[in-house]
Amino acid sequence: MKSLQIHLTDERIQSVLSGFKIGLEKESQRVTSDGQLATTDHPTSLGSRSFHPYIQTDFSETQTELITQVFDTDKGAIEQLEALHDVVVRSMENGERLWPISMPPDLPEDDRDIKIAKLENQGDINYRRYLAKVYGKRKQMVSGIHYNFEFSHDLLLNLFQIQTEYSDFTLFRTDVYLKVSRQYLRYRWLITYLFGASPYADKRYFTDKEPEQPVRSIRNSEYGYTNRPEIEVSYQTIDQYVSDLEELVDNGELIETKEFYSSVRLRGSDNVEELLTHGVSYIEIRNIDLNPFERTGVSESTLRFLHLFLLTLLFLDEESTDAKQMLDLGTEYNNKVSLEHPLEKTMFQEEGEWLLEKLMQLNTQLTTPFDCSDLLNEAKTVLAYPNKTLAGQMLEVMTEKSWTNEEFGRHFANLYYDQAFEKPYQLAGYRDMELSTQIFMFDAIQKGVKVEVMDRVDQFLRLSFDGQVEYVKNANMTSRDSYVVPLMMENKTVTKKVLAKAGYHVPGGKEFSTVDEALISYPIFKDSPIVVKPKSTNYGLGISIFKEGATKEDYDEAVRIAFSEDDSILVEEFLPGTEYRFFVLDGKTRAVMLRTPANVLGDGRQTVAELVAEKNKDSLRGTHHRAPLEKIQLGDIEQLMLKEQGLTPMSIPEKDQRVSLRENSNVSTGGDSLDVTEEMNDSYKHIAESAVEALGAKICGIDLIIPDSTIHGNKQDAQTYGIIEANFNPAMHMHIYPYAGVGQRLTMDVLMLLYPQLNN
Amino acid sequence: MKSLQIHLTDERIQSVLSGFKIGLEKESQRVTSDGQLATTDHPTSLGSRSFHPYIQTDFSETQTELITQVFDTDKGAIEQLEALHDVVVRSMENGERLWPISMPPDLPEDDRDIKIAKLENQGDINYRRYLAKVYGKRKQMVSGIHYNFEFSHDLLLNLFQIQTEYSDFTLFRTDVYLKVSRQYLRYRWLITYLFGASPYADKRYFTDKEPEQPVRSIRNSEYGYTNRPEIEVSYQTIDQYVSDLEELVDNGELIETKEFYSSVRLRGSDNVEELLTHGVSYIEIRNIDLNPFERTGVSESTLRFLHLFLLTLLFLDEESTDAKQMLDLGTEYNNKVSLEHPLEKTMFQEEGEWLLEKLMQLNTQLTTPFDCSDLLNEAKTVLAYPNKTLAGQMLEVMTEKSWTNEEFGRHFANLYYDQAFEKPYQLAGYRDMELSTQIFMFDAIQKGVKVEVMDRVDQFLRLSFDGQVEYVKNANMTSRDSYVVPLMMENKTVTKKVLAKAGYHVPGGKEFSTVDEALISYPIFKDSPIVVKPKSTNYGLGISIFKEGATKEDYDEAVRIAFSEDDSILVEEFLPGTEYRFFVLDGKTRAVMLRTPANVLGDGRQTVAELVAEKNKDSLRGTHHRAPLEKIQLGDIEQLMLKEQGLTPMSIPEKDQRVSLRENSNVSTGGDSLDVTEEMNDSYKHIAESAVEALGAKICGIDLIIPDSTIHGNKQDAQTYGIIEANFNPAMHMHIYPYAGVGQRLTMDVLMLLYPQLNN
Repeated sequence: MKSLQIHLTDERIQSVLSGFKIGLEKESQRVTSDGQLATTDHPTSLGSRSFHPYIQTDFSETQTELITQVFDTDKGAIEQLEALHDVVVRSMENGERLWPISMPPDLPEDDRDIKIAKLENQGDINYRRYLAKVYGKRKQMVSGIHYNFEFSHDLLLNLFQIQTEYSDFTLFRTDVYLKVSRQYLRYRWLITYLFGASPYADKRYFTDKEPEQPVRSIRNSEYGYTNRPEIEVSYQTIDQYVSDLEELVDNGELIETKEFYSSVRLRGSDNVEELLTHGVSYIEIRNIDLNPFERTGVSESTLRFLHLFLLTLLFLDEESTDAKQMLDLGTEYNNKVSLEHPLEKTMFQEEGEWLLEKLMQLNTQLTTPFDCSDLLNEAKTVLAYPNKTLAGQMLEVMTEKSWTNEEFGRHFANLYYDQAFEKPYQLAGYRDMELSTQIFMFDAIQKGVKVEVMDRVDQFLRLSFDGQVEYVKNANMTSRDSYVVPLMMENKTVTKKVLAKAGYHVPGGKEFSTVDEALISYPIFKDSPIVVKPKSTNYGLGISIFKEGATKEDYDEAVRIAFSEDDSILVEEFLPGTEYRFFVLDGKTRAVMLRTPANVLGDGRQTVAELVAEKNKDSLRGTHHRAPLEKIQLGDIEQLMLKEQGLTPMSIPEKDQRVSLRENSNVSTGGDSLDVTEEMNDSYKHIAESAVEALGAKICGIDLIIPDSTIHGNKQDAQTYGIIEANFNPAMHMHIYPYAGVGQRLTMDVLMLLYPQLNN
Repeated sequence: MKSLQIHLTDERIQSVLSGFKIGLEKESQRVTSDGQLATTDHPTSLGSRSFHPYIQTDFSETQTELITQVFDTDKGAIEQLEALHDVVVRSMENGERLWPISMPPDLPEDDRDIKIAKLENQGDINYRRYLAKVYGKRKQMVSGIHYNFEFSHDLLLNLFQIQTEYSDFTLFRTDVYLKVSRQYLRYRWLITYLFGASPYADKRYFTDKEPEQPVRSIRNSEYGYTNRPEIEVSYQTIDQYVSDLEELVDNGELIETKEFYSSVRLRGSDNVEELLTHGVSYIEIRNIDLNPFERTGVSESTLRFLHLFLLTLLFLDEESTDAKQMLDLGTEYNNKVSLEHPLEKTMFQEEGEWLLEKLMQLNTQLTTPFDCSDLLNEAKTVLAYPNKTLAGQMLEVMTEKSWTNEEFGRHFANLYYDQAFEKPYQLAGYRDMELSTQIFMFDAIQKGVKVEVMDRVDQFLRLSFDGQVEYVKNANMTSRDSYVVPLMMENKTVTKKVLAKAGYHVPGGKEFSTVDEALISYPIFKDSPIVVKPKSTNYGLGISIFKEGATKEDYDEAVRIAFSEDDSILVEEFLPGTEYRFFVLDGKTRAVMLRTPANVLGDGRQTVAELVAEKNKDSLRGTHHRAPLEKIQLGDIEQLMLKEQGLTPMSIPEKDQRVSLRENSNVSTGGDSLDVTEEMNDSYKHIAESAVEALGAKICGIDLIIPDSTIHGNKQDAQTYGIIEANFNPAMHMHIYPYAGVGQRLTMDVLMLLYPQLNN
């Protein structure tokens, strides 16, 4: 292939230079809390491995493999990998963890205790049995990152249009990937130097000899997971690559082409022969060790470096036209670097500096937002200071803490395990999204439903499973509801009209669209218990309640407050009783919740302030809706409320004295959420369910006022209940992680509504 | 029944005093443009009389009967009656009008030319044949208003709870309505005085004798539409009322109970005998003449007066316990008042003054917003000045204009006809609603689908037909679309992703959620043709287009403008070509529209300002979205645009010179809408249809950029088209009433989508 260097500064290339696609695979061993290989099966809560797009097992039953989708940013891939970790770790039983190092933990004495993955397909099992026989089970227990990389189509197309050597695009693209593969194999030692992270291995891993000192990467060395030296495949042309592989299989030296373990695999088709016609469309980089300092085994900056590395190799002229010579040299360099002591300088430092300079040059061609100067300066430092390599850092930590390699591994396995459970209602990688959406994504991933975030800010997801695509917003807005029903529920007047028409008890009242009209109507409501509220808003804003009726002054003020939130307001009859939220899905009440105002319970010993601080320690409490409950404040409103009870934050309430800190029961102002799904009288559930049916909704949060829930509710008897609101975007996280009572996994109900076949 | 007067001041009564229910029926004769009885059949466009809830025929084929639903305000009933008039008048053929006076127009010489209504049910026809035989066809041609009235349930219930005479509520309610009926029959002369409006009748109407002078109300007099004097029915008790009626039927004096023509009919059941068990639940007042000064035949203030009148009669003690005596007296008074000369004072003025005083007293009990003082003061004036009665006013107009009664009738028939066609895109009674909703309501009413406005501001309708209820918002949001699809379309990024994934050509681009991120990304877009726009807004706001690429300064400014409209913005590739709006419904392109910027066409004679003024005369142009097109302005932007062409508003463009006044093609800034549904190449319709299917939408406005619509469009060929937006709330009125081209009745398509059975 002729030099591409000259095209790098072409405008047509620069504008598309930074595009790419990435997909990650990450293996790791499942271990017990003691760091021993787990003896349990792959967790059943993770759905079926026969279709799971994200979570599989590789060689052994304990070797969990996480597979991301294809992304066009490093961030996207890392985020999903973060999430997959949360899902896997929280789905494992008995406190099992994931082993953070590429080299496996202590291996069992008896090989038979290493269980081959219990897959459904017999062919898959046979293949693993063959591998166990040829390489030994222990070699197969090594884990790593596979980095699938594709240049942007526009970049390759523009390059193709500019160059004059090729007239067929597919051929050009294939040769580009062959060139990059050769270059990668030639220079991959730098990756091993920077990111190698397997200095030690369990004694039982080695068969005859073993390294005499800690090294940069056992996995990438001759001790690693490699084919026998006689297995040689040419990267000169695609024809040769394919024919070499096929010959190896024909001769019985490989059982199938995927047994060929190269640091770079040419991809584009499941069947190697098809590469001849379809061409190579991406490459799979396979020599990345797990980074134990990262929960996901790989950092975003490593991915960015790899991207820049490959982009540089694309434009960099090859040092030789003899592919075999380059590959042999590359293997020699890499083997040497792999077995260097992690704290010693590499013998190829000079070539490394030259290579990093090439990366620097390419970087100057990238437009501002994609600039990687910081990253490259850091790589230069690491090249100069081997203790900053991953292997070097590992060694330094072990020395500092006097840890063995196993102890080091256990420490991080435990750390990442604890992190996964710290806030079980969040999903790593997507913590900026709404809690309900995070939990919903968790459930979908767990069950093997593919999830794509179409828009983060908008909480818009695309799910697919079994060829069936579903879009979901806010985890509760789906194709199962019709367009017009939520619009109906958004309008409180219309909702009430529809419910009243269907025979349900709703508070009487009037709607006003001008302040004057509302003010002049005071005589209608004089002396009646009323609620004044904006017509459409949904967060309890602008609502005034007058349980004993309002004076003209209070009424006028309430009208103005309500109008400040909306163009129309409602003045409604106040219904006495307790308010419950019924979450109805597909005709069935899935959760019932009682919310109580922020409060603490005295113990006769601590002050109100201390009790608040203690209650706020609950990991379910957070701020700004990042947790299912909000921390209780001690602001002006709370202090006023205390004052009315003759208390201050310094008062010590008696034992079992309940001190309220708020009048309103909103969870957002520190209120408690109590799940009462089991306890609630069925008669009210039936009222809620049939009312939601009357509205025509599939998913609905409906608020009932119930004066006495011990009495049987009756649709016709307005004394037993009243419906005050129906919510088309009902919160779900508060039901799933309530303050007290049993959590109701509503997100799973939504998932099953969309994909009932998952229930089987 | 004991006196109720004492309860009037009770708080429990006052709070519910003003509630009521009302339903109207209004008959009128269909006439030709010459004011002759129409000879055509009931219009076929009005659907079938076998189910039409609003538009029926009474006795004759020409006697159109309009029936409103039940409302709880006078305004609601009047508004619907207004709308029914628009629908009926616009549905009649050959310029037929409705006759505005109770007494029919010139009747044909031959009775056989008065056609009995061509109803489906043979029983209905037979009943009319019997009436024709017994009363003569001419008597049956009289028209009027029937006023159905029900006191609020709360008022009657509270009264029942306060009083001590009755222990059964149904019985109490029945006796209340009997009392009010007796009172109404006793004092109805005042209604005849105030609202009587049939001073003359055609000679052919009378059989033997006729009045010698103009009178207040022929219809309410002995010449009117009454039973023979010997038909007597007691209003003393419900038992007597029912048994009297049944006896009359048994004796063959009435063919069925509905042949009993009283000014008040007791209602509550189709079958009179059932009144004994179910009780009376409302009354039908039948003695209101058509008011020819009102298009609807009755004014809102008349309805308010009747309400107050009935409320007064409820609390007013009866002058006698002898019902027959009261009824006889009432009939005597009414007969006399009916035949008084309209310009003479009534002989019962004193009783009238006393009665109005009673109304005044009751009015003081009503809370502020329901106060009727103005109305009552006006009634007092009318009582003092007979020329202010309706009949008096009619006479004065006829005298002033030297019109005969027929000429008077023709004048108003023509006037109301012209009014109905002045703005055919509006629907009287609902002109404050969106045009598309008005047109949609027109279509639904025309076809006999029941329409209820659930919320005016929100354009929220409830339709019902054939037991099937449908809710519709904005005339295009229905149950046929799913919840999540419009949410998808609301988000331009998600829409593009979904379309791109499905293989459609959409402009490339990037989304930014911070100003800094967008600004720093300028190098990516430098020198490319781009569009900078807010992510979610839908009205063309905040959009900047750079067909030749943007300078850094222009780009920065555009980014800031877009961010002023939304939290996120898109910077997109600009697609060259012409933008067309495709309106796709149920998989089929129903309309294609091309919008052009505000412009005028020179005639070599008039100035730009004159051409604009002339173009603005089109009744399709209005302001503030009250018409399908907006008037062209001559403001700063337009003058600048003229200046750029070397013109001023005073310039005289050459013949056929097209002068643009705007750069943007929005209809809201005076642009023209051109329907090109027929002309558009089918290939683009198919692209639009399949793209909408890919989005999963039933109703969608999708915008295609087409560089050359004479070339066959191809989904795979990005050169032939690009999709720039999908709209979940697409405007419909501009397609129905375009500036040029054929109107596409999209509202009817929506109706047929909801009720396909209407197509049969």
